[in-house]
Amino acid sequence: MKKLLLLMLAAMTATISTQAQTKRSADFKAKYQLKEVVVMSRHNIRSPLASGGATYMRVTPYEWFKWTSPGSQLSLRGGVLETEMGQFFRKWLVGEGLLPDNYRPDGDDVLFYANSRQRTFATAKYFSAGFLPFANVEIKHKYEEDKMDPLFTPQFTKMNDTYRQQVLAEINAMHNGPQAWMQSVQPTLTLVEEIIDMAHSPAAQNDTTHFWYDDTQFTLEKGDEPKMTGGFKLANSVADALVLQCYESESLSAFGHELTQEQWRAICGIKEVYDALLFTTHSAAVNLAYPLVSRIREELHHDRRKFTFLCGHDSNLASIGAALRLVYPETEQALELHTPIGSKLVFEKWSNGTDEYVAINLVYQSVSQLQNRTLLSVEEPPMILPVTIEGLTANSDGLYRLSDLDARMAETMTEYDAIKDTEASAIPAPATTIPSGSARSYTLSGTLAPNSYRGIVIEQGHKTARTKY
Amino acid sequence: MKKLLLLMLAAMTATISTQAQTKRSADFKAKYQLKEVVVMSRHNIRSPLASGGATYMRVTPYEWFKWTSPGSQLSLRGGVLETEMGQFFRKWLVGEGLLPDNYRPDGDDVLFYANSRQRTFATAKYFSAGFLPFANVEIKHKYEEDKMDPLFTPQFTKMNDTYRQQVLAEINAMHNGPQAWMQSVQPTLTLVEEIIDMAHSPAAQNDTTHFWYDDTQFTLEKGDEPKMTGGFKLANSVADALVLQCYESESLSAFGHELTQEQWRAICGIKEVYDALLFTTHSAAVNLAYPLVSRIREELHHDRRKFTFLCGHDSNLASIGAALRLVYPETEQALELHTPIGSKLVFEKWSNGTDEYVAINLVYQSVSQLQNRTLLSVEEPPMILPVTIEGLTANSDGLYRLSDLDARMAETMTEYDAIKDTEASAIPAPATTIPSGSARSYTLSGTLAPNSYRGIVIEQGHKTARTKY
Repeated sequence: MKKLLLLMLAAMTATISTQAQTKRSADFKAKYQLKEVVVMSRHNIRSPLASGGATYMRVTPYEWFKWTSPGSQLSLRGGVLETEMGQFFRKWLVGEGLLPDNYRPDGDDVLFYANSRQRTFATAKYFSAGFLPFANVEIKHKYEEDKMDPLFTPQFTKMNDTYRQQVLAEINAMHNGPQAWMQSVQPTLTLVEEIIDMAHSPAAQNDTTHFWYDDTQFTLEKGDEPKMTGGFKLANSVADALVLQCYESESLSAFGHELTQEQWRAICGIKEVYDALLFTTHSAAVNLAYPLVSRIREELHHDRRKFTFLCGHDSNLASIGAALRLVYPETEQALELHTPIGSKLVFEKWSNGTDEYVAINLVYQSVSQLQNRTLLSVEEPPMILPVTIEGLTANSDGLYRLSDLDARMAETMTEYDAIKDTEASAIPAPATTIPSGSARSYTLSGTLAPNSYRGIVIEQGHKTARTKY
Repeated sequence: MKKLLLLMLAAMTATISTQAQTKRSADFKAKYQLKEVVVMSRHNIRSPLASGGATYMRVTPYEWFKWTSPGSQLSLRGGVLETEMGQFFRKWLVGEGLLPDNYRPDGDDVLFYANSRQRTFATAKYFSAGFLPFANVEIKHKYEEDKMDPLFTPQFTKMNDTYRQQVLAEINAMHNGPQAWMQSVQPTLTLVEEIIDMAHSPAAQNDTTHFWYDDTQFTLEKGDEPKMTGGFKLANSVADALVLQCYESESLSAFGHELTQEQWRAICGIKEVYDALLFTTHSAAVNLAYPLVSRIREELHHDRRKFTFLCGHDSNLASIGAALRLVYPETEQALELHTPIGSKLVFEKWSNGTDEYVAINLVYQSVSQLQNRTLLSVEEPPMILPVTIEGLTANSDGLYRLSDLDARMAETMTEYDAIKDTEASAIPAPATTIPSGSARSYTLSGTLAPNSYRGIVIEQGHKTARTKY
């Protein structure tokens, strides 16, 4: 009986904490004042990435949902959802007294900075309309050409062989290694093969009726994002296109298969494996997330700033989290397990007059809000789940000391500084030849991959055995 | 049988013409190229006007819908709807080849100019996000302070007694005069009294259980909008608040009364009488709409402009229409009879290589699109109804010559020029004293109203007999 009571209390506490951002008590508000908010946002719903386009279409006989935007760009729905999210943030922050309603930013009070890709710029633009509907505000961006801005590119800016092996070792330590982790989602891969009827797809004519993944190789090179090649990458593209189609079609069924929310979460689990392997080892993350961690740190110490909106990708959220050892909550009412489409990692800076504190929340729209395009407000908020910081202790009001977070940020930046940047191989090469003049691929066990390696590339209607990564 | 066939053909033609903007034939597109679009927009859904606030709330015992914005400002829904409308215009104009997708305006190609009120600026801002999601674009406006910009103020900028009597004469000629027209909507006034349960309202304690309208007076003064005082103004405020609540609450019922769409149109008919009397006599309109007619004319002759978005009020659409003798269609799938919330008067400029033509459409969201916040696209367009020009003949492709419209605009501007601007009264005053130092009010019959006149003002919980307008 006592145990039941404790469980109930725990459940109540959980409910309160999940609404922390909008449900803070009067006592809390009397004690603390909100000084600044820094939002690190993932873009909202987009069309499938153009680069995976041909392939994800060729592994099914079905027609995909007719996307409302060109490949990789923000969809009409994505734009509307982001406008609604901007409206929520306005209502919330006006309620907190951080900004007046219909605020017209003055000087450096507000910053919108987006990656130069269409989907990230447009996300920021739509958000800003809902957030500052009575103001002209510039979305800062670096390129006109839909390119990746280095700030938002989760790339290695330093590399050496020791460090590469360290990253590979951490990849191999995750969930018993990539192969075991991939094997654990085999039932879902089979389910996806059935959903998309891969057996009757154009690709099947060339014998690709399954998602193979024993050919996985990793490429970890300076100036590039960490990459994975092989069949699991294709599975990731298909899972990505499926979940986007689910949002866009306002249905939980796919190609005539009625799916449960649990099955959808399993499908998103494929993406989870892919993203986590590439972007969430701590060693890789301190490198990949360095520019953004550095920027968020600056923003939190900016004298005049009240609101910052940075717009990038889920890989940014994943690597920032891993670099800072943030513990993302397991999502509720979402298909994605950690950083649902349009997610915002929200850093709130609070002051009690003497000390500064920080709270971090993950804010995103539930599946139902995504599909129904629900208007959001403080009374009808998006999903808000607290993010904790591994190794740091929050005070009794649920806040971390800003100085503690700052020290954590400084640590990760020191870790980055400690990475030697050299291309020279200090480690004896495995018993294969390093391909000269091209990026090096590594097998699941962390050894250099041979030039010729099992794998399928589906291209131009023909299957070709992959001989180079 | 032949008659039935003709009727069917007529119905088909009507269907085609209502979709003119998005359903132009391949032949048409081969012949004409779209050169420019000028949009004169009404703002989208707002909270009831603050000025009528106290009164519309005191004539019912019910709580009104909890608006999502302060009085007179754009609601959350209004913002989202406008974003969706901007997305439709983008998709449509990209399809027409006027602008590329994800256009970043260059120089003077695009102009957004809004009245400085929150609801008009915000409407333009939200629209611009959906229309140009990959660009920073400034919403031009004249005041920071939520004031009326003279361009969008439907005010008399010239006045003299002869002209005033001419306007009053035209008002008296509309639908057999204001009193007869108001009387014709008496059944609806009674319906509204029942819907809001006026008999049990706070106002009823002071004997105001009905909408009186035999006390109507008009004020037509230089530097001011035409105004109406008396009970019908209150009826107009209540009808306005009701229809806004209908959109916001996503229900066709009001305070527990199930209403049909026909009953809603009747309620909007109250607003129609009010707006039409004030803003749609031709004599008044050439004065009230002069700045906007002049501006639209300039825009249509602008060398570089491809897209103009002007954002004002329904009174702007009403007076521009009356000034230019445009024939607005009777709306379909809308509650309002002529210019539904968020309406756009869309001037399209077409060229066949030698001559320039114009098409005018009224574009708005249907009740269902307003309530469901429907995503819009060329395949799922908003309502589009053609506007015709009285006295001008369209060619066989349904287009007017731009030179004909231009001549019409020039005529109305000449009519404005011809209005003498003098405050001196050249007409013998009626047998009442003109209130000195204040605006003059006129009775339904066009004579000066006496200082003391039947009427009720509900203010601060007390009914007071109105002695001044």
